[in-house]
Amino acid sequence: MDVEHRHGGNRASIATRLGCRPSDLLDASASLVPWTPRLPRLSRSIIRDYPDRSHNLLRCDLARLHGVPCELLLAGNGAAELFTWAARDAASSGPSLVPSPGFADYSRALGCWDGPWVRHQLPLSWSADRPQPIPQTPEAEVLWICNPHNPTGQLWSRASLEPLLRRFRLVICDEAFLPLVPDGEHQSLIPLVAETGNLVVIRSLTKLYGIAGLRLGYAVAQPERLQRWAQWRDPWPVNGIAMAVGQHVLSSTRRHQRWCRKTQAWAAREGAWMQQQLAVLPGITPMPSAVNYLLIRANRSLLPLREALEQHHRILLRDCRSFEGLGENWLRIGLQSRRNNRRIVSAMRKELSRTPLG
Amino acid sequence: MDVEHRHGGNRASIATRLGCRPSDLLDASASLVPWTPRLPRLSRSIIRDYPDRSHNLLRCDLARLHGVPCELLLAGNGAAELFTWAARDAASSGPSLVPSPGFADYSRALGCWDGPWVRHQLPLSWSADRPQPIPQTPEAEVLWICNPHNPTGQLWSRASLEPLLRRFRLVICDEAFLPLVPDGEHQSLIPLVAETGNLVVIRSLTKLYGIAGLRLGYAVAQPERLQRWAQWRDPWPVNGIAMAVGQHVLSSTRRHQRWCRKTQAWAAREGAWMQQQLAVLPGITPMPSAVNYLLIRANRSLLPLREALEQHHRILLRDCRSFEGLGENWLRIGLQSRRNNRRIVSAMRKELSRTPLG
Repeated sequence: MDVEHRHGGNRASIATRLGCRPSDLLDASASLVPWTPRLPRLSRSIIRDYPDRSHNLLRCDLARLHGVPCELLLAGNGAAELFTWAARDAASSGPSLVPSPGFADYSRALGCWDGPWVRHQLPLSWSADRPQPIPQTPEAEVLWICNPHNPTGQLWSRASLEPLLRRFRLVICDEAFLPLVPDGEHQSLIPLVAETGNLVVIRSLTKLYGIAGLRLGYAVAQPERLQRWAQWRDPWPVNGIAMAVGQHVLSSTRRHQRWCRKTQAWAAREGAWMQQQLAVLPGITPMPSAVNYLLIRANRSLLPLREALEQHHRILLRDCRSFEGLGENWLRIGLQSRRNNRRIVSAMRKELSRTPLG
Repeated sequence: MDVEHRHGGNRASIATRLGCRPSDLLDASASLVPWTPRLPRLSRSIIRDYPDRSHNLLRCDLARLHGVPCELLLAGNGAAELFTWAARDAASSGPSLVPSPGFADYSRALGCWDGPWVRHQLPLSWSADRPQPIPQTPEAEVLWICNPHNPTGQLWSRASLEPLLRRFRLVICDEAFLPLVPDGEHQSLIPLVAETGNLVVIRSLTKLYGIAGLRLGYAVAQPERLQRWAQWRDPWPVNGIAMAVGQHVLSSTRRHQRWCRKTQAWAAREGAWMQQQLAVLPGITPMPSAVNYLLIRANRSLLPLREALEQHHRILLRDCRSFEGLGENWLRIGLQSRRNNRRIVSAMRKELSRTPLG
């Protein structure tokens, strides 16, 4: 697998390879909300001037949203840039515990600082009754957790995570997908940050607002930590357009909340519909998920199915070889509009009936 | 001085403070070309999709421009992001030599990796006959050099820099302003990269094209080094809009070269005009410069002049306290259009006649 296809969301380069337009491809390999808000007019000055390096306006918009002081916020060039700085702190705090299967960017970030880490294998069968257990092993000092977990969609409760803050020297909680979970904010660790020095929460605005091209994430942590990060990293990590769009979508808390409610209702509705539809397809099992993506598994390789969907139906699903501990027998599907979800199910039905998995 | 005003180019936040619109301010505190090219239409997919993490198209555009293989190119979230990764290599190669006065971001980047560095003080008087000497001291293993130098505007010849590649274990050459220097490309170290493993050249497109809000820089170095950097840093450092605009402005080499010629002719013409105009103002001395900014010095603090220009004339000049080794008696002026350069000179004349410097 070449490097560029490890993550998914490579519509332009795959379109070039297939000889079609990017808009011909239905991209369910990334897990973005399928709508993008109306964007503000971009003034010449936003493109021309250096971005405001303090990004105070954006920080205060984010702080208002979460009901915390502005000093607890720091924006980044996507969540991934912030993982780099969280990993610097992690590397100096001892071995990290990284759940597996999980997002490959945590170990990338740790590798950048030669930070040691151990993998904690999550069980690969789970259900509403038997959720995945929270990762804990004795030999680690730092915990990286993703809530809801990527790629399994497992949601852990705040109450179940709280004891970990006493157990580990540092907890880095990736809540990139939490705003897409119905009532998900009740499980957020953000309300604990003000009184918990060893907690970092990282969020993304690119998934929620469908603006991955702009790069915009943020960290919530205590001010001394964020000031340290700001001194390490370059002075203008957040570009002016991401900043302007971020300020625009967050300028009205009410509008933002309306967006979240609409998004969560969509994720709940389409998630349930997809589970139902996929459950009756032969040879695959859809796994339960709290959020806007779900895994399917089979007893043999799903790569031929993924390739057939790409070649014959212009549909991109996520190759799960990028998640350590999964492999060829798994695919991840990012939810779409009902119309496009129908297109995915119908294409899968066709391919599975043409070449049964066994 | 608060952190946000250390660098210059903070039009929006200063406008807020002064209670005016950003467009009311003439910003000569940053050193951008005063025009911005016509930008391409931004498709929904550029904003929505993850940026192409390989950025192969942009890399090959840059490679064609410099006549080197694509593998020698790596784009970054502005030049500053690339300094961070260059500094990781520097920190593991031994003490760095950082010229002073100089761009504060080199020591920021080294600090991020706890990289040791020593300062090399450049003489603070120079002229066409007596240029600033090239920094060299026995105790360093890595040389950071900026050509033309920021903030002095000193241009070093390629021939004079070449021996340094044998003297130092690693040479990091910041050529952010070189494309703005008439015939500057003849002094570039880029043609040496293919055969010189210990050389990194860093460039910026934001100054040349007046697009600082988008963040776009690139490094030229040997492939093994750039592959290492790409593994350390986050997967999407270059946002989709910067990538699209970069590809657009570089899509025609001829158009790019026309842009550079126009820019260089402007820098030469306006630089000479400003020198002449400033030389006859009382109490200040304009210093020679090869590029689109110049320093002025005085025998006492120029901060009152800077503040008067900001308060009464809406003109921003660069506070030089951000350059270690300069201080209050210096200001840096970024060249503008002739009309705006007249506005700067006339405002300075007025303020200097009202409150003579002595």
